[in-house]
Amino acid sequence: MKSKAIFYHAGCPVCVEAETQLASALDSARFEVEVVHLGQEKARVSEAEKYGVKSVPALVMNNQAFHINFGADLSVLK
Amino acid sequence: MKSKAIFYHAGCPVCVEAETQLASALDSARFEVEVVHLGQEKARVSEAEKYGVKSVPALVMNNQAFHINFGADLSVLK
Repeated sequence: MKSKAIFYHAGCPVCVEAETQLASALDSARFEVEVVHLGQEKARVSEAEKYGVKSVPALVMNNQAFHINFGADLSVLK
Repeated sequence: MKSKAIFYHAGCPVCVEAETQLASALDSARFEVEVVHLGQEKARVSEAEKYGVKSVPALVMNNQAFHINFGADLSVLK
């Protein structure tokens, strides 16, 4: 069974770079990557917060949040 | 040809987590991941800096530095 990975972003340049280079580099045989634009899906900001996401872009794998560089604070997306 | 990715770390808990979860999740069919412990290979700190690495853990892909959470500032590894 594939592991789920969630890539949270907000369409920012830093986010796009992280998605293009890093999120897309994950092994698709082992991971199913869901891409969530928190600017467009504000209802999911609280979900991201539960995983410990503080800023975007961030990748959540196995319930752990990995912040990748810094694009925007989660607070500005609420 | 595989792309080269370099994972710079310093053995810190945040580094280990990022390596175990994220660096190891890259598609090995497309990427060759080199793991560099900057605490043990201080001569490579300047190499990391050239890529724009400011802190560890960080992953360099296509000459771009992606800082993953925050373990330690590069300055303490010199």
